[in-house]
Amino acid sequence: MPEKKKNISALNEKEGVSQLETLNPEAVKHLKNFKKKAQSVDELISGVLNKNQASLSRAITIIESTAQRHQQQAKEIIEKCLPHANQSIRIGITGVPGVGKSTFIESFGKLLISEGKKVAVLTVDPSSSISKGSILGDKTRMEDLVKEPNAFIRPSASGDTLGGVARKTRETIILCEAAGFKVILIETVGVGQSETAVHSMTDFFLLLKLSGAGDELQGIKRGIMEMADSIVINKADGDNLKAAKMAKNEFNRALHLYPPKESDWAPKTLLCSAIKNEGISEIWEVISTYFETVKANGYFQHKRKEQNKFWLMQTIESRLKSEFYANPLVKKELEKQLKALDENKTTPFEAAEKLLAIE
Amino acid sequence: MPEKKKNISALNEKEGVSQLETLNPEAVKHLKNFKKKAQSVDELISGVLNKNQASLSRAITIIESTAQRHQQQAKEIIEKCLPHANQSIRIGITGVPGVGKSTFIESFGKLLISEGKKVAVLTVDPSSSISKGSILGDKTRMEDLVKEPNAFIRPSASGDTLGGVARKTRETIILCEAAGFKVILIETVGVGQSETAVHSMTDFFLLLKLSGAGDELQGIKRGIMEMADSIVINKADGDNLKAAKMAKNEFNRALHLYPPKESDWAPKTLLCSAIKNEGISEIWEVISTYFETVKANGYFQHKRKEQNKFWLMQTIESRLKSEFYANPLVKKELEKQLKALDENKTTPFEAAEKLLAIE
Repeated sequence: MPEKKKNISALNEKEGVSQLETLNPEAVKHLKNFKKKAQSVDELISGVLNKNQASLSRAITIIESTAQRHQQQAKEIIEKCLPHANQSIRIGITGVPGVGKSTFIESFGKLLISEGKKVAVLTVDPSSSISKGSILGDKTRMEDLVKEPNAFIRPSASGDTLGGVARKTRETIILCEAAGFKVILIETVGVGQSETAVHSMTDFFLLLKLSGAGDELQGIKRGIMEMADSIVINKADGDNLKAAKMAKNEFNRALHLYPPKESDWAPKTLLCSAIKNEGISEIWEVISTYFETVKANGYFQHKRKEQNKFWLMQTIESRLKSEFYANPLVKKELEKQLKALDENKTTPFEAAEKLLAIE
Repeated sequence: MPEKKKNISALNEKEGVSQLETLNPEAVKHLKNFKKKAQSVDELISGVLNKNQASLSRAITIIESTAQRHQQQAKEIIEKCLPHANQSIRIGITGVPGVGKSTFIESFGKLLISEGKKVAVLTVDPSSSISKGSILGDKTRMEDLVKEPNAFIRPSASGDTLGGVARKTRETIILCEAAGFKVILIETVGVGQSETAVHSMTDFFLLLKLSGAGDELQGIKRGIMEMADSIVINKADGDNLKAAKMAKNEFNRALHLYPPKESDWAPKTLLCSAIKNEGISEIWEVISTYFETVKANGYFQHKRKEQNKFWLMQTIESRLKSEFYANPLVKKELEKQLKALDENKTTPFEAAEKLLAIE
């Protein structure tokens, strides 16, 4: 690649180009465009590394793009950013709609910024690919945070699949880290499996709750409580305070039913009122203690490695499946075998063998 | 296959064989053995179809065998039994150890037999492949049922993986059905994912519970309660009766938190005392109503089709994975890519692409 770029630069010297231009104007036009693009990718990368937010935004747009011409650029951007990534803490934040995620992130983000940290806020919301409505939503939801020069707010990438959205979000994390963001907050709206995806790309998982909302069972059922490193009961103010304190005890009891975590971290239950900025610094203290603990006992590094492995395997396996079923011969035979199954003329295992023999 | 057998029979005519024997005694020995085996598979199959339990047992042993020479025989047995299968109801039974599964199955099985039904009891227990201890265990656990000529009790197939055990169990179901068993009870000891496997091969899922055992949360957490078509609280007798009735109300309340089932069936909570034979016929009534309902609304047929699809996909996908990772080139590259990941020199998605390019 650098070899190629040098050649183009050499060609672009005034005399060389004008000479070539007379011979083949189309080629020169192409080369000029190529150089412009190559330059802009290089510019983008150095912009990102120089902590320029406009460059960061544009670079993320390229990564999120499904256009063929952006794929190679995206690869190059990520490759150049990778050596500068991984120097952050990644915090996942989830909770049902109405729990006050935006207010919490606004309040929490402002505290971190007041301590001199650069904070990026990303969202994982596979459903936003349909409505496309969250862009404006996110910006207005956090109206104070968005004005902070040390904050970067980016709504969910769109995508057909959670896997696609997750990949783009993971790559966006790399870019944000390369741009010097030391705290990455990843919010999920809790649709489908998105919590699991966010849990698989963050170091700390924070579950926001309301007192008496009656969604305890849902949280347990869907395995979300099990993932939490901390449960924070929001809106613990005024008339709500007493109920919130009771809920805190309830959650503490429920948390004790789970086996100890691999991280050796006992999940903490906390109270806060995001809208009144109460309890926020206590949450940050707990999170800081968590990071001290897991960095000291090696779990932090271990978990990031495991997450890399998880996404590697996940990507491979989903592609193996999609490629297998995309084969027209498989499609045809699958139809035949499903019919035979419906007529009790074969077993699923026999049918599977016939299908696997196609490859 | 029939073509081949005919030739062998022809050769086995006294004169033909003695003639060949002089020329090539080894070949004749081989042919005689071949005929013996072919005969015994045919004999086995007709034994199974004639409801001979000894034949059924031997046929299942062939299916469970990992020996290469049994694979073709197993295929033939299943193929011949398939047209006679699928005429049963399949009931999954689960519950924690100590809940009284064996006592319940003994009591329930005897009721069904008294109504003239033939009952097969199978177990799915992937852990039994280690201890191999359940064979004697199962037989002694149900000491009355085992004496009934219309009962057939078969412990869990052994196997390295739950997938392997599940496959063998599903094939055993086919054989039992071909042997005229109209009710198949499949018990699982609730280790790991075995409930999900049993749920995926039965029409009705019965969850046995004790009052005040405190495993409600476990059941919810692991998604087992969600699978239940009926929750039966066992040991509802004597001093326990009051607590059992309270538990019944609790479970009813919990069940209402779940969305309606695709089957349109509202799960029922019942009490019983298996050891005292109390409440057993009420359970059978509920189960009978279930089958009337789902056979009338088409869900019964739909679910069996979906289960076939599930096992087909499951088999394909697990084989795709195992074959991919078994490739020595993949193994080598995987090691390389995992190292690159650990050193932050690549992303999981980039690494996955490199690995997928190997194929």
